Amino acid sequence: MSTTAPRGFRAAGVAAGLKSSGAPDVALVVNDGPGDAAAAVFTTNRFPAAPVQWSRQVLSTGRVRAVVLNSGGANACTGPEGFGDTHATAEHVAQELGIGAIDVAVASTGLIGVRLPMGELTAGVTAAAGELRADGGDDAARAIMTTDSVPKTTVQARDGWTVGGMAKGAGMLAPSLATMLVVLTTDAVVDAGTLQTALRAATAVSFERVDSDGCLSTNDTVLVLASGASGVTPGAEEVTEALTAAATDLAMQLLADAEGSTKDIAITVRGAATVEDALTAGRACARNNLLKTALFGNDPNWGRVLAAIGTTDATFEPDRVDVTINGVTVCRGGAIGDPREGVDLTGRAITIDVDLRAGGEQATIWTNDLSLAYVHENSAYST
Amino acid sequence: MSTTAPRGFRAAGVAAGLKSSGAPDVALVVNDGPGDAAAAVFTTNRFPAAPVQWSRQVLSTGRVRAVVLNSGGANACTGPEGFGDTHATAEHVAQELGIGAIDVAVASTGLIGVRLPMGELTAGVTAAAGELRADGGDDAARAIMTTDSVPKTTVQARDGWTVGGMAKGAGMLAPSLATMLVVLTTDAVVDAGTLQTALRAATAVSFERVDSDGCLSTNDTVLVLASGASGVTPGAEEVTEALTAAATDLAMQLLADAEGSTKDIAITVRGAATVEDALTAGRACARNNLLKTALFGNDPNWGRVLAAIGTTDATFEPDRVDVTINGVTVCRGGAIGDPREGVDLTGRAITIDVDLRAGGEQATIWTNDLSLAYVHENSAYST
Repeated sequence: MSTTAPRGFRAAGVAAGLKSSGAPDVALVVNDGPGDAAAAVFTTNRFPAAPVQWSRQVLSTGRVRAVVLNSGGANACTGPEGFGDTHATAEHVAQELGIGAIDVAVASTGLIGVRLPMGELTAGVTAAAGELRADGGDDAARAIMTTDSVPKTTVQARDGWTVGGMAKGAGMLAPSLATMLVVLTTDAVVDAGTLQTALRAATAVSFERVDSDGCLSTNDTVLVLASGASGVTPGAEEVTEALTAAATDLAMQLLADAEGSTKDIAITVRGAATVEDALTAGRACARNNLLKTALFGNDPNWGRVLAAIGTTDATFEPDRVDVTINGVTVCRGGAIGDPREGVDLTGRAITIDVDLRAGGEQATIWTNDLSLAYVHENSAYST
Repeated sequence: MSTTAPRGFRAAGVAAGLKSSGAPDVALVVNDGPGDAAAAVFTTNRFPAAPVQWSRQVLSTGRVRAVVLNSGGANACTGPEGFGDTHATAEHVAQELGIGAIDVAVASTGLIGVRLPMGELTAGVTAAAGELRADGGDDAARAIMTTDSVPKTTVQARDGWTVGGMAKGAGMLAPSLATMLVVLTTDAVVDAGTLQTALRAATAVSFERVDSDGCLSTNDTVLVLASGASGVTPGAEEVTEALTAAATDLAMQLLADAEGSTKDIAITVRGAATVEDALTAGRACARNNLLKTALFGNDPNWGRVLAAIGTTDATFEPDRVDVTINGVTVCRGGAIGDPREGVDLTGRAITIDVDLRAGGEQATIWTNDLSLAYVHENSAYST
């Protein structure tokens, strides 16, 4: 049920012809209220796409009544003309729904540096508006897919209220190819400020800890819309908990479906002086191509773990660091530990535990391997 | 002639059995003087290999009379035992040559986290000492190869004096798989301080601007030895110029032979407020897997250039940035420029010019594409 699991929402997904494959490519999610509080987290890339620039203005009001999303084109680096295209899309949605353009957030994903085919897109918006249904969430989730092999949705039922959501792509701070887009919905009664604080907390420990290929998209967008239709007003902590559960569920689905990946890798750095140190060391591993290719090759090459964290400024003494891969402590005190031959890497799940022995903090970063299929998919994308 | 092109040097390369292939794997370069000034630049990785720890102590004296290098094992993350192995190797070289162990620098390359087979290694050192020849530089250059497909050597003749050198690997600040090792030699009369200043200047604009895969080795070492055998005392600027020429020549050879690469990519960032900004923006491109896979696929995907530099804190206005790929300005003012179809990427050489329009500084970073062969080579290395 995705974004339409909570009460007060309708959604649709249609094929507008933006994708040459003829697959669905325009999604619409509408909040019928009675509330319209909203919050968002956007990419920090300094080349934000036109829809990100537009939606930031919309979200500055703390209110959103509809979200239109398209795959088949990112509308990034398209100049003032591209921004005009996004604005026109929002105006068209507003006209169809009888609301204001400022009530309409926009999100796009696909190739950078290409204008959107506006004729197809606006016709698609009209079609989607005509197909809005209270059970349309799954159709919307399918229409935002790009290289995703399956739609990603979540439903988190709480006491009299619900959080739903859909996602495409992989990873927030460092998503893979074509942008991470996420729309969360809830029928809880929540004000925009509470929603924004809860969303930031939820993304910080979920999407922002998935680091698939270290690249940061121009279009990343995570939105949350609250209809208030349940009439239930949960506490701020309850909202944070439910949004975190939904975001974590979606983040793990993104990881499992990352482009060309054959491994899901959880890198936990413990014994860190600070959480920031743990994240820095974890990310250095997640972004190390030599380690990621070794894991693709089922090679427990722990030297590449040390070489990666050795490039960071995290607090640790090199001769105190332990590394455990899938349960085998292959490195003790920065030197040779148990035989690497004992490590079984044939499954999809890999856990790397690094103990810095420098404090009591820890954090986990999730990533994928660097596979032949990754290179193949990403070298053949726009051509 | 490599390291033996300048007068006062002998070298050898032998097969000691460290490599299962039976290829040469132990090299020895000896400075017969009359001078023995030396300087070095080492990896900044916080897990420096045993030979790096040892050689740092040797170089603190400003003097080196012999360098022993082995492929077939990095002797990194091997604890006190590994340091003992390096020490024993230096002692054995010293014994063979009738000098002190503190006169002997050591460099190693190969798999991290495995002890060296000391029986084979010391026998190899004895054999190499017996084969030292004034024209042995090419043999030494072959013995330090790992995944290199060709030996890398350089000779820079100046007015009555010469710089020679050999290298293996790819990139200093960010070398590929198996470490960058470089030995430069000169018969100029130079003191250690001048040599160190000149070497730092030379590596800063050569090896440190090659960024093959963003990974930093535990073993990177660049040494320079001065015999003074020419009797010529060049000025400090002349020494810097000649070392820079030698280092740049070797750096370009490393780039051209990087593991599994199909493209040599020169990323020039101009119009930067500072050289540091230009380097930061250039490195962000060089480390962006999405851009590197696109170039492997002959895809002039300029959006990935902007997405990469958009993650940096370099000074620029997003709507003023131009990107030119192989002569075609595909992006103007942060938006769509000339048609990307006009870009021919079928050759090995690719030039990416980014104009930040924020100042008068510029710098070039060299890198390679991310290819299927890169993943294949690096996933199959230790297994």
